[in-house]
Amino acid sequence: MDLPLGYLFRDLDDDQLKRIAAVAREIPMEKGQQICREGEEAKELYILKTGAVELMTKVEHDVELPISILRKPGDIFGAGVLVAPYQYALTARCAGKGVLFSIKRSAIQKLMMEDRDLGCIIMTNLAAHFLGRLKESRREIKVHFSTLLRSYS
Amino acid sequence: MDLPLGYLFRDLDDDQLKRIAAVAREIPMEKGQQICREGEEAKELYILKTGAVELMTKVEHDVELPISILRKPGDIFGAGVLVAPYQYALTARCAGKGVLFSIKRSAIQKLMMEDRDLGCIIMTNLAAHFLGRLKESRREIKVHFSTLLRSYS
Repeated sequence: MDLPLGYLFRDLDDDQLKRIAAVAREIPMEKGQQICREGEEAKELYILKTGAVELMTKVEHDVELPISILRKPGDIFGAGVLVAPYQYALTARCAGKGVLFSIKRSAIQKLMMEDRDLGCIIMTNLAAHFLGRLKESRREIKVHFSTLLRSYS
Repeated sequence: MDLPLGYLFRDLDDDQLKRIAAVAREIPMEKGQQICREGEEAKELYILKTGAVELMTKVEHDVELPISILRKPGDIFGAGVLVAPYQYALTARCAGKGVLFSIKRSAIQKLMMEDRDLGCIIMTNLAAHFLGRLKESRREIKVHFSTLLRSYS
């Protein structure tokens, strides 16, 4: 099975990629289908093959704030499977019919324990990704802050 | 040299900790001193021994937004040394006279290449830390969003 190459698997060699592909299974998704929910135990890592997935976070009782839309094959979500306390940080919903690869937490953890080089590469990629999102998020806060500053000056 | 144990070195064994302590050097800091600047090349990882450090980000020409104050021995900043493109994400300024440990990027990278288990543990801790900060940052955005929602309803 050929896994599309997203940020998480960058710098892995062919043999390492093969071992990851071997524990992935394909699952179809329908538009509107909820794939995982913010705050729930993270059991699967998801990799987009085709289609689109919207990520969002709950703001109030029934209001959700959209965070991003994934459309590129290889885009990843559910990375909470890689980080204690193993919870999904966002809710994911299918925004365009397609196919996902999913990998069980126990399977990816086993590969990372058996091959620490693979583990180090994946966690380095994940940290870089989270740092990128953190910077984006801080940029957004700065915009709010600047607006506030101007409204008081 | 005894390194205070912050989040980054959690789960390392005594031998791994000793190797890290061996490449750390102590540097004194004076109140008001700038230790590193947002956007600059990250050359050193810093670990707080005593004193306090304020982390901030530039909003506009001469306005800075405070992000957090580090006071706990073992608190870490300058983690940009661990993630390409190796830039400091925030500016750090001494907010209370004290002592830092600093570790050169080349030294920590060498340890992580030589011992992939050590690398995997550090990068897992770092990813968990960034994810925690990302969640905090999103909570802040939600507050702004809720306020906006209420002002329009």
